[in-house]
This record gives sequence, C-alpha cells and structure tokens, in this order.
Amino acid sequence: MDPKVDSNFGTEIILLAEQLAGHSDDPEALTLAYLTRAHQTAGAEIAGSMIEAGMQVRIDAVGNVIGRYAAADPQAPILITGSHFDTVRHGGRFDGRLGILTPLVVARHLHQRGERLPFHLDVVAFAEEEGLRFRSAFLASSALVGQFDFALLDHKDADGITMREAMCAAGLPGTEEAIAACAVNPRRLLGYIEVHIEQGPVLLERGLPVGVVTSIAGNVRKRVTVSGLASHAGTTPMAMRRDALAAASEMVLAVERRCGDPRYAAQALVGTVGMAAVPQGAANVVPGRCEFSLDVRAADDATRDAAVTDLDAEFARIAERRGVELSVSQTMRVPCAACSPPLMDRLAGSIDAAGLPVLRLASGAGHDAMVMARVTDVCMLFVRCGNGGISHNPAETMTAEDADIAARVLLDFLRRTAADLG
Amino acid sequence: MDPKVDSNFGTEIILLAEQLAGHSDDPEALTLAYLTRAHQTAGAEIAGSMIEAGMQVRIDAVGNVIGRYAAADPQAPILITGSHFDTVRHGGRFDGRLGILTPLVVARHLHQRGERLPFHLDVVAFAEEEGLRFRSAFLASSALVGQFDFALLDHKDADGITMREAMCAAGLPGTEEAIAACAVNPRRLLGYIEVHIEQGPVLLERGLPVGVVTSIAGNVRKRVTVSGLASHAGTTPMAMRRDALAAASEMVLAVERRCGDPRYAAQALVGTVGMAAVPQGAANVVPGRCEFSLDVRAADDATRDAAVTDLDAEFARIAERRGVELSVSQTMRVPCAACSPPLMDRLAGSIDAAGLPVLRLASGAGHDAMVMARVTDVCMLFVRCGNGGISHNPAETMTAEDADIAARVLLDFLRRTAADLG
Repeated sequence: MDPKVDSNFGTEIILLAEQLAGHSDDPEALTLAYLTRAHQTAGAEIAGSMIEAGMQVRIDAVGNVIGRYAAADPQAPILITGSHFDTVRHGGRFDGRLGILTPLVVARHLHQRGERLPFHLDVVAFAEEEGLRFRSAFLASSALVGQFDFALLDHKDADGITMREAMCAAGLPGTEEAIAACAVNPRRLLGYIEVHIEQGPVLLERGLPVGVVTSIAGNVRKRVTVSGLASHAGTTPMAMRRDALAAASEMVLAVERRCGDPRYAAQALVGTVGMAAVPQGAANVVPGRCEFSLDVRAADDATRDAAVTDLDAEFARIAERRGVELSVSQTMRVPCAACSPPLMDRLAGSIDAAGLPVLRLASGAGHDAMVMARVTDVCMLFVRCGNGGISHNPAETMTAEDADIAARVLLDFLRRTAADLG
Repeated sequence: MDPKVDSNFGTEIILLAEQLAGHSDDPEALTLAYLTRAHQTAGAEIAGSMIEAGMQVRIDAVGNVIGRYAAADPQAPILITGSHFDTVRHGGRFDGRLGILTPLVVARHLHQRGERLPFHLDVVAFAEEEGLRFRSAFLASSALVGQFDFALLDHKDADGITMREAMCAAGLPGTEEAIAACAVNPRRLLGYIEVHIEQGPVLLERGLPVGVVTSIAGNVRKRVTVSGLASHAGTTPMAMRRDALAAASEMVLAVERRCGDPRYAAQALVGTVGMAAVPQGAANVVPGRCEFSLDVRAADDATRDAAVTDLDAEFARIAERRGVELSVSQTMRVPCAACSPPLMDRLAGSIDAAGLPVLRLASGAGHDAMVMARVTDVCMLFVRCGNGGISHNPAETMTAEDADIAARVLLDFLRRTAADLG
C-alpha cells in the first residue's frame, strides 16, 4: 500500500455511514426522503464532517451540501465528486452515501497532511436522487447542470405539501431564481467522478473490490395492458379462451429470452417485468385483463433499442395469435451516458497502481453521473456490494477493506489528475 | 310445437327476470347478496308470483322460497326443481333465476289448464349459492340436504354483521333447530331437476338452444407462492436472476398446456390461473415474489386429479431449475357430481320430442344440483348463453325463444315423470 497513506479510510467510512444512517424518517429501517426533518439533520451532519475535514461548506437552493477542498488559486478549475444522501424506502446505508463519505475522508487526509491540489475538489452531497417523496428522480443533479424542471415545485407529496412549501419549510428560498443559480459553470470543470456501491453481484462474483464503469444505462420503460375476455373458469373450454394472463405470461418469458440471450450479455442488456397484476382477478374467472411494466436497459442505446423493437414485434405476434388486444405506452426513455475514456483510463491506472486487476463494467442503475454527463466528462468507480449484490434493501452491505481500497484509488486518481494538470 | 301449449313461456320468463332484476343492492348493476333488504324484497316478489301460479308457498329458516304445485294426494312423492336467486357482484339476470322462473311459468300453465301431476312439484328459490356476503357458497341447498355448517352462523360480513344477526333481522329464527328442520326427507323425493343458463359458449358454438348436463365438475383449488430474490432491475445480470414472476409465468403456461391438451377436451378438463400478483412490485425491481391461484376442474375426478398431479410435478421442476422456492396449499377440493342416467335419458327424450338434437355436456360451474345430488338423483338442463357465453356479468343474456324451448322441455319432462309414475 501507498506508504504516504497512514489513515484507515475503510473503518472511517463504515463508521460515518453508520452514523449517517441514524437519521431516518422511519425508525424501523433507513428511509430518508427529500427535505424531511431527518433529511435536514443528515445534511447538517454531512456539513459538519466536511468542515472538520477542512472544507468550505455551503448548502445550495435545492439542499445540496457542497464542501470545497479549495486549491490555493481561487480561479483554479474544479473537479466535482459526490453522490446522493437521500434513500429509497427501507434502503441501504451505502447507496449514494459512499460517494460522499469516500472523498470526505480522502479530503480530510489531504488536509491533515497539508497536501494541496491544483484544483478545487467540490464534494457534492446531492439532496435528492431517488424520487421517493415527489417522484422527481435526479432532482439535485439536474439543478447543478441547470436543467431543473420548475414544474416540480408544484408537485405534492403524499400529505399534499408542495415541493416549494417543503423547501421554504427547510429554510431554502424556494424560488426559480435561486434554483437557477445552483448551476455550475461547465467551462470551469475538469470533470466529475462518482464512487458508488455496485448494487449488483458482478464484482462479488469476480472476486474484485472495485471496477471502472464504462457507461450508465438509460432505460426504456413501458406499461403494457393485455385485454382478453373475462369468462367463467369452469365453463369456458380451454380452446375458446382469450386469457389475458396466459398471453402476458408468454410476453414475460419473451422478455427473459430476448434480453437473456448470452450474445448481449457483454452489452449488459437486461429486461425486467417488475409489476404484473390481474385487476379484479378471481380464482374462478379467466383473466380478462393483465397489466405489466417493462424496463429494458443496456450499456448502449442501440443494443437496448434493438431489444425493445424485437419485443414490440414479439408481443404483437403473441397478441395476434391469442386473439387478445394489446395496449403499450412508453413511460420513460432515458439515453445512456458514456463515461469519458481519458477519465476511465486514469481511474484504471489508479486501480492498477493499487495492484488490482481492472474490470470495466456497465452500470445498469442510473446515477447522478448520468445527469452530470450532460455538461462535463464523467467517470465512476464501482465498489463491491456484499450479500449477493443486494441493494435498495437494509441488507445492503460492504466491507471496510473494500471501502479502504476505494478511498486509496480515489486519492491516487486525484493525484494523477493533479499531475496531468501539470 | 305441442298443441296443448298456448302460453308464450319465453316472453313471460324474460319479463319476470327483468322484473326480478329490479331488486338490487347496487343501483349500478345487479347485485343481490344474502338477506339484504333487496334480497328480501326479491324473495317476496318470487313468493307472490308463485302464489299467483297456484302454488302453496313457504319461506324456510334459511330464506329459501319454496312453492309447491301440489298433487291431489298429500302423501304423493316430491320432485324438486329450482335454483338460486342471489347473484355475484354485478351479475347476470338469468344465472340461477332461470331455474326458478322456468318451472314457475310451467306450473302456472298447468294450474291454468287445471292439469294435476301425480307428485308434488316443489319449486325452490334458493336464497344463497354464490357466497358473496359471507363466503359461504351453496348455503341454501346445504340446508335442504341437512348438511348446513352451523359454524357459518357466526361468520361476519364486511360490516361485522354475523349471519345469525342477518337472519334475525330478516325475520328468520336464526336457530340451529329451525335450520336443521329445513332438511328434506330423501325417501319422499323422486329427484331434482335444475334448469340453468350454460354460462359458457358450448351450446352457442354448436347452435343449440338446450343441452343435457352429464356431470357437475367439482374443483381443486390451490394457492401458489413463488419466492425468488428481489433485486435491482438495472444491475442484476439476466443469468444471475431468481425472478419469481418469470417462474410463475412458466407455470401459468404449463397449466394452459396440460389442461388444454385436446386429449382431455372430452372430459371437459379446464385449468385456470385467475389471480396473479407481484406483491410490492416495482418497475425497477426483479420480482422477489409472485402469488397466484390455480383452479382445475373436469367432468370426472380422475381426469382432474391426474392433471393436478402432473402440474404439481411440473411446478416443482420449474422451481428447481430456476432456483426459486415454491409454496403450494390446497384451498378447496370438491368432488364431481354425476347426473342420474335415467333422469338424463328422460330429459333427452323431452329434447328429442321438441325436435332438437340432444347434446350432452359437462358443467364446469358448480350448481345447487351438485349439493342436492348428495341425497337424491339429479339432472340439469342447460340453456344457451348469448354474448359469447359470458356470465357473472351484466352482459349475460339469453333469448326468449331459448327460454321458451327450455320451458316446453321442462313441461314435457314433468309429464314423462308423471307417466313413468303411473
């Protein structure tokens, strides 16, 4: 290990994550929705840790907590790193937070050593990425890239409180002007790097602590309704049925077959039917209707779109053959974000310098980096997820050893960035 | 047509059904649950029509309205006919009721002609068959055969009212003694005949107004839970998934394939997955659990049980191959009831006498006849169901012409029964 590093980053990160998980909307399991009371105290705790790490801290108009480990020159370029601190309902303590705590302990280390960087390192604790309270995913990063959707200010949470009201109650201005002013100036940016727990089993299966993300999958999401004919389960002969569920079952298996084709595994193609229901179904009624969701992702848009096109055709064939009606509506289409090859190479160099093999893998989950990629070069460091790769779940876990490696790789990456700046 | 018949039975039946459908718990669509206010007024209307048809009427302790078109000899044997007048939620106006109104107009015709039968014809308007209010199907016929489950008296409806309280509020005694006294004496019975709308498309497809039921399918019902592993839809590679819905989809198609095998069509084998759900499913989560219902029926228990055994094995194979857990519980097992060959032959003779071909078909739906078969010989006359055979739906329909044929066939059947007694 790098002899210049004497800190135990891993243990510090695990302890900070544990402390941060103490702020929860739900005493049962970690839940942190945008601008709740617990969300605000969590943000305040992050701010305190940043100050203690030698950073200048400010909270912007959407609640992002931004700590700057400043360069000597106020006009120096800026490298942004960070991730979100809100969670899903009953989420994990590393999802998002690892990308805040890792640079935080690294900055503290630099600060303690008196080691300055020739660029400002801005650590952004994004206030909202999961969309739990207002169904507004990537809210915080969209403000940073100047693409905040102001219509969201009038969205209401389950209690009828608008986002604007929630902002004002949290001491934020809640005005369009203030939110517009959150935007960074892309010309000053060196790029964006995000450390994130993998949320999947790939690194775990390969026995690797970290990996370089090549691209962040966008997704196509659809809502499919199959309409057949509800009829009596006892009196409708099998050959005369127009069973909506049987048709939908064929479609589910078609998704699995097409997206599971090993030829597309390298492009990280995945297709999921996550919701399925027979509305008003009864044990003694042949299903007249079945509704399901479809989510398709891949490392590149072409691979994904080809799968979606094939599935559209296959669904139509199944419906035609079975005499059922098909109604398909697209509810989401997000393009993939490619990571920057120079930043990926630099990150690979840091992993290699740590004596580890470099695995490049696509991210199937969306991340703040996907939004930041709209204005600057991005890269991501994935860290191994324990427990079979489970995430969005209190069972999400990682080891202190892996967190330590992630911090050392990030530290090395910062120094390489400094060296490249010359 | 029989020159002795000058009545227009068909039109009368359609008008009576329309009138009876005016009594509904729900103004939107016909709904008649056990012992509601509308149920009681419907029963009173049936009683009135029976009296007007020359019958002696009584209401028994479970609310059955029983009209007797009496023989001259009080000690004469009894032929029972009838069906239920309660409905499912948003049901049809002929389901059940046709089996009350058809003998009612036939009895009125005999009464008007002064034509006596050598047996008492008891027309039973069963108060409850569908189980809508207390989840207690075949309640009324079970009282008639002396097999009423007294535990039901303490069952509560959705408003917390017990069946016993509902009985008392409707002016019924609500005591076990009174209900036990509803039982018929099997030794006095000639048998039971039930006229019923087919509730399926077979007669419609064959272009026939009526058919002879050979057996009433019992069913095996199961509740199946498939447990896989919920995981992130974006980050879990296809090859690493344990998708509960995909496994369940294979099972749904296995049911369709096994029960739809043309080799078993003659045994009226049908298998249905009518309910299916992914609890707490989300578009971006690989389903960790899927629950579904299974209902299997056939004209004979052996055919049905062989299918259930094969499906049990096939489900286990699918679960094993996919690494998901399977939990199966049987929630219902009702044996098939065979119709009486002599009664079927007599009914076939009446259809033949009407100049119609005789189609024998199994009933996939349960009927009061299934319960009556426990104490006496039964047969059933199915009448063509319009609109593609739809039932348990306000779109259920039949023609006056078919109702007329059904009445004439029943009248002939009664006369043949009389002749056989002679």
